[in-house]
Amino acid sequence: MAVIAGIERQIPTYELLSEEGLATIETAADQILKEVGVEFRDDPEAIRLWREAGADVKGELVRFEPGLLRRILKSAPSSFVQHARNPARSVTVGGNHVVFAPAYGSPFVRDIEGGRRYGTLKDFENFVKLAYSIPWLHHSGGTVCEPVDIPVNKRHLDMVAAHLRYSDKPFMGSVTAEERAEDSIEMARIVFGREFVEKNCVILGNINANSPLVFDATMTNALRAYARANQAAVVVPFILGGAMGPVTTAGAIAQSLAETMAGCALTQLVRPGCPVIFGNFLSSMALRSGSPTFGTPEPALGSLVVGQLARRLNLPLRCSGAFSSSKIADGQAMTESTVSMLSAVQCGAHFILHAAGWLEGGLTMGYEKFILDADYCASLHTYMAGLSLDPNQLALDAFREVGPGKHFFGCAHTLANYETAFWDSDTADNNSFEQWRDEGGRDAMQRANARFRRLLQEYQAPPLDPAVDEALTAFVTKRKTDKPDMWH
Amino acid sequence: MAVIAGIERQIPTYELLSEEGLATIETAADQILKEVGVEFRDDPEAIRLWREAGADVKGELVRFEPGLLRRILKSAPSSFVQHARNPARSVTVGGNHVVFAPAYGSPFVRDIEGGRRYGTLKDFENFVKLAYSIPWLHHSGGTVCEPVDIPVNKRHLDMVAAHLRYSDKPFMGSVTAEERAEDSIEMARIVFGREFVEKNCVILGNINANSPLVFDATMTNALRAYARANQAAVVVPFILGGAMGPVTTAGAIAQSLAETMAGCALTQLVRPGCPVIFGNFLSSMALRSGSPTFGTPEPALGSLVVGQLARRLNLPLRCSGAFSSSKIADGQAMTESTVSMLSAVQCGAHFILHAAGWLEGGLTMGYEKFILDADYCASLHTYMAGLSLDPNQLALDAFREVGPGKHFFGCAHTLANYETAFWDSDTADNNSFEQWRDEGGRDAMQRANARFRRLLQEYQAPPLDPAVDEALTAFVTKRKTDKPDMWH
Repeated sequence: MAVIAGIERQIPTYELLSEEGLATIETAADQILKEVGVEFRDDPEAIRLWREAGADVKGELVRFEPGLLRRILKSAPSSFVQHARNPARSVTVGGNHVVFAPAYGSPFVRDIEGGRRYGTLKDFENFVKLAYSIPWLHHSGGTVCEPVDIPVNKRHLDMVAAHLRYSDKPFMGSVTAEERAEDSIEMARIVFGREFVEKNCVILGNINANSPLVFDATMTNALRAYARANQAAVVVPFILGGAMGPVTTAGAIAQSLAETMAGCALTQLVRPGCPVIFGNFLSSMALRSGSPTFGTPEPALGSLVVGQLARRLNLPLRCSGAFSSSKIADGQAMTESTVSMLSAVQCGAHFILHAAGWLEGGLTMGYEKFILDADYCASLHTYMAGLSLDPNQLALDAFREVGPGKHFFGCAHTLANYETAFWDSDTADNNSFEQWRDEGGRDAMQRANARFRRLLQEYQAPPLDPAVDEALTAFVTKRKTDKPDMWH
Repeated sequence: MAVIAGIERQIPTYELLSEEGLATIETAADQILKEVGVEFRDDPEAIRLWREAGADVKGELVRFEPGLLRRILKSAPSSFVQHARNPARSVTVGGNHVVFAPAYGSPFVRDIEGGRRYGTLKDFENFVKLAYSIPWLHHSGGTVCEPVDIPVNKRHLDMVAAHLRYSDKPFMGSVTAEERAEDSIEMARIVFGREFVEKNCVILGNINANSPLVFDATMTNALRAYARANQAAVVVPFILGGAMGPVTTAGAIAQSLAETMAGCALTQLVRPGCPVIFGNFLSSMALRSGSPTFGTPEPALGSLVVGQLARRLNLPLRCSGAFSSSKIADGQAMTESTVSMLSAVQCGAHFILHAAGWLEGGLTMGYEKFILDADYCASLHTYMAGLSLDPNQLALDAFREVGPGKHFFGCAHTLANYETAFWDSDTADNNSFEQWRDEGGRDAMQRANARFRRLLQEYQAPPLDPAVDEALTAFVTKRKTDKPDMWH
């Protein structure tokens, strides 16, 4: 299997707004931060840090003079390496680098045969194995689905163990409680060594704002655990337009900027210089039903602008990829996902979460969807490589050889180049209608089903030092027996 | 039904190459034109025009000094209006305007119930009616499918009559023979008046190069017929990489530029100042099968560059939209089509042909695909409107009203804006899983099927002056009885 540790982007970003437009949004965010403020609930330590940093603190409400957060954020690195246990798979987050990671957080999974059902640890492990098997995904992700057959206070142990055992790609840890974040980091220390983890990023934690303009203690406690350990929090607002934010996109972007700056800055108060990722999550709403919608034009535009804003902050950017509200991997799913994913790529995101598998507004992780999305990730490798203009690519000799009205099939230039000339899909059917029909007339979802089953069959685990494996098992066992199961 | 006569783009184009890169491609095109040349076959009048213009003519091979074609092209307008018989539907081709037109040229059609079958005049009329019924398509197109139940030398009469009767949107005429082009223009004269047509563009003709580097007489005769009548030829290479062009994208783009400049310039020799559209059609190839592939990254990048090149020529640009090699409107079809269509929009194309319906590399016009593509066209209206940053959009008062941790559902800003806030899909299902399942669990293709059937049921023809209608009938009848049927 080819090792592809991220992509180096060789295409420009797509610049939607002018400098003036960006400044307008930044001013709006500054006004929100100064006039309305952000609440940090039930976290006296966060409040203490803000007071010490010079913010205007009243109870749990923190307000910020324009410029304060930007000054604090100057200590955050614009780029960092997230190390994988296989060094060849370590990824750079920032600069020209782009990292694709699976979808995150679905309680349900789906495939053609089993339909939609609650996710289990088996499903979780399957998705870790699939992400490991597909070179176009550079990251193992985090909660690739919720293993609801495991107690809620213990499943993080099995999830992190699965990422470490069934993959050697970089991964994300738990954030649902401070001790679960600390367990995740501790398991990373078992694999990478305590000293290495102290100096290097080996795990990410995805920290959601409780939008609008609130961070609750669960999240800030986990955020502080990652920052303390010099690991990277990914700070992400969760704005469904019309619910957790205004129905207008410009306002939602300003809110997103305000919330993310505040969350990212908190990591720098905990440990100046620790890595942090600026996150983005916008959606729209169906007017008839009030349901959130995904892959629509408004968040696609929003991503382009958030990308511009993140560059002005000089922070690595997380965007969301293959979003859809469809229940299955059909035409709706793939239009929406392509729109959303391409926008994430064009906006200059460095870490693209939800790049594969997402269905039903994030409620379901789809096996077939995972494969079709991963195939689009593959094509984006070629897209991001851009256009080479060297003499061989310009092919003037081929034109001289072939001349008007002849074909290029057998010419020297074609023979020398055809094997590497074009991206080739793993799932598209480009055959004739007759061949397609005679082979069963299967749609893309059915072909993806066959492919994920084959990948799981052919899966072979990457080697893991048996002593490390044992130490992981011992840690998990101890933590599991230390306390009673919780199911809610 | 809302009248939307094209879109005014309010987003920037996506600039892939630097000025230097563009100049490299232009130089390569100039070298192809000077060293290899373009053949104009069996068309002494074209050869005469080229000789008169100062090109280097040897038999049917014409070679061009750098700069010659650019000088000739200076007389072509950068923007023009294509008039529709309903003036409210006239479209501007050029500038900030974007026009979406249906797919063109498929011998087959497809729907769920009937499967894949040869197209008939009934199908043709159905697609004209559908394009008329959908406000997101601004143009009736041309050969929306081949009506193979009508003799090949007479079907253009029925096709043009259908465009004129069943729609009042702008349309395209026949190009498959000079007399068919002239018949098409003559029918337009019946509707618009001879004098109006002499001064205004009311019909387009899609002229393909016989790539590589050949124009055959069928095409140049039709091209000259449109130019003579002051109507717009759309000059389009047809480059399947590895067959009619090199396997490398930069070379294919240089070839495309060379062919299109030559074809467009010919229109200006026939009638300086007549409208002409610079066309673009690139594809890639599946290495395992040698089949052409669509919606892949290479032509997406190619479109972005061709857009930049067309702007430097100051000519209106045609790009291709919803390309796919899939046989049905599944996930493959919609990923490929979305990639291709979005690239056409981002590259700055003014006239986007094949914006709806295309399947199977252009062999099949799909009813369900037409609906799903048209829905994506709808979303692109919102995308191209870009992001407004006025105070209402920035929503600062809403943040002041709502504050941290509250929701925006009922706030004054939401109530004032929610009805127009978000784009709403005609085909996406954003409902809950349970609701979707209880309503039959239909995929996007099935929903599109229901929608096209309903649109056809509800279709009402736009009014047409009975005298004009009679004159059209008389013209078609006379032309049909003038000569024997040809079936090949």
